[in-house]
Amino acid sequence: MTPTPVAPVTGHNPQLIDVSRGTMVESRHRAAFAVADTDGRIVLSAGDFERPVYARSAIKPLQALPLIESGAADAYALSNAEIALACASHSGEPRHVETVLAWLARIGCAPADLECGSHLPKNDTAMRALLRDRVEATPAHNNCSGKHAGFLTLARHIGAAPKGYIAYQHAVQQRVLGALETMTGLDLGTAPRGIDGCGIPVIGIPLGNLALAFARLTDPRDQPEARQAACERVCAAMAAEPFMVAGSDRYCTRVITATGGDALVKTGAEGVYCGALPKLGLGIALKVDDGAQRAAEVLMGQLLRHFGVLDESQAELLIEPLRNCAGTRVGEVRPTADFPV
Amino acid sequence: MTPTPVAPVTGHNPQLIDVSRGTMVESRHRAAFAVADTDGRIVLSAGDFERPVYARSAIKPLQALPLIESGAADAYALSNAEIALACASHSGEPRHVETVLAWLARIGCAPADLECGSHLPKNDTAMRALLRDRVEATPAHNNCSGKHAGFLTLARHIGAAPKGYIAYQHAVQQRVLGALETMTGLDLGTAPRGIDGCGIPVIGIPLGNLALAFARLTDPRDQPEARQAACERVCAAMAAEPFMVAGSDRYCTRVITATGGDALVKTGAEGVYCGALPKLGLGIALKVDDGAQRAAEVLMGQLLRHFGVLDESQAELLIEPLRNCAGTRVGEVRPTADFPV
Repeated sequence: MTPTPVAPVTGHNPQLIDVSRGTMVESRHRAAFAVADTDGRIVLSAGDFERPVYARSAIKPLQALPLIESGAADAYALSNAEIALACASHSGEPRHVETVLAWLARIGCAPADLECGSHLPKNDTAMRALLRDRVEATPAHNNCSGKHAGFLTLARHIGAAPKGYIAYQHAVQQRVLGALETMTGLDLGTAPRGIDGCGIPVIGIPLGNLALAFARLTDPRDQPEARQAACERVCAAMAAEPFMVAGSDRYCTRVITATGGDALVKTGAEGVYCGALPKLGLGIALKVDDGAQRAAEVLMGQLLRHFGVLDESQAELLIEPLRNCAGTRVGEVRPTADFPV
Repeated sequence: MTPTPVAPVTGHNPQLIDVSRGTMVESRHRAAFAVADTDGRIVLSAGDFERPVYARSAIKPLQALPLIESGAADAYALSNAEIALACASHSGEPRHVETVLAWLARIGCAPADLECGSHLPKNDTAMRALLRDRVEATPAHNNCSGKHAGFLTLARHIGAAPKGYIAYQHAVQQRVLGALETMTGLDLGTAPRGIDGCGIPVIGIPLGNLALAFARLTDPRDQPEARQAACERVCAAMAAEPFMVAGSDRYCTRVITATGGDALVKTGAEGVYCGALPKLGLGIALKVDDGAQRAAEVLMGQLLRHFGVLDESQAELLIEPLRNCAGTRVGEVRPTADFPV
């Protein structure tokens, strides 16, 4: 790859999260975030929320909309568990993988049709079991396999070739792009673009517009009727099946479970997090400058606390303890002293 | 753990490394570094190099000095491979683990005497083999097991109880502290302090003083005679056994090998890197604010290029390609457009 032209570095985002160890701050994370209502008003923000970011897997709930509004989800009688998996970065635990395999079989596809590539399960127990049993990881174990099963289902339903469904020009990705455009309120045809970890296009979108899209997910009254039903179904599925959205001990699953679905949050690689707060009609989008997931989680926790969706009783969703090899608590990931809220 | 008082956040370090994906910069890393000569002159720097950092595993070459200057290394006839392991964050590959086990046996200790805790090997092949063969990871697999074997060897030699050797007050850690003080030129008794991943004390030391200590490692003429010999032996062992310092495909091993020992570099957790350039009599210390190893490696590569120790022919030590699940090159970790050198 030859060096590509890149957007100039602009904006100096505030230090929002730090990592302490013993008597000192060891590491520091800068971030930007936006919280929007369904009219696109930014009700809370920090940093440069107008700069495009790749939302990575954090926008899977938006990428799942065409699957539903096209009629594909109904045609193949998708369950809440399957729709939650379409929105998921799952841990590759047995229930995730088995559900994807059964789904693929129902649409006449095999794991080899998934174009996401393979990696070992993120869940430690599942990873160890696979290696112990000398089972090779397949694309079904990939954390994105549910999203890709959704893409294949959509391809089947609209009569597009399943092969090559990850390409920007493929009908599936064009439908996804269309949904992103109407949800974010942007023309994304000339937006910055790259390739995601699982091979699909990633599109640069400002945090403010991502926050609007997630607010709309909770209250899609300005969207077409089929879109409205699709938004409701995505929210209902994520709330009903939090395990399918991520997995054991994962932050997304813990938050959705702890809040009883009042916060539908979704992580993305490189320090992105998005969330929808159905009762408040708000959407949240954040990115940690340096891509650190630990900081993205704590930042999301602090915003959820600010909006009253989490409280101090859920301490380990607000501040993450840092433990060493022996299990000793040696520090923590936490908001900085001058955290804005 | 109750919240501890922490040093105030000062200094805004420059953005030195960014991560591109497609047509956009996706993530950004800030860092500080210092390059010092043996007189403590800072010959090159960026950011706040006077702020204390925990150097973590990057100062293992300094922590190994008491093992040698005490006479313990000679008394137990330590090989270059063993001394390199005392300076290592190894990948837990068979040769690392077997060498540590043989060393422990020679000093009358067992893996259970290592107080570093256990974790799976960092090397993927070694990790998979262990799980496939249903072998439990022991403290000998811990990336710090060589350093801890060195601590046990020192304890044996000076007649201190091996048990509890990781405690700040233990004679072994006090000797290590003494070596750090004379090498960095600082009184560290009141320095910020915490607990490392492997249980030993971590001490806050400014990057400028760490750079001086690594310059002294290459040219210890102002140190006592036993220290001078110890410094020479550490450098010789790291140069002779680069595989033992880290492992297959690891950045430390690749750099030491590629430069034929002209750059003796050592990684530490949370984005720290230290290095000694024997031919130039220079020491390097850097920390990425957010703790990202990928940025620390590329920053070290760029500094080594600046000092002529690496050149453009070693492209993948200067700029790290980013590949997705399918192996496609989708971006890179690289110096920012306004990188200072």
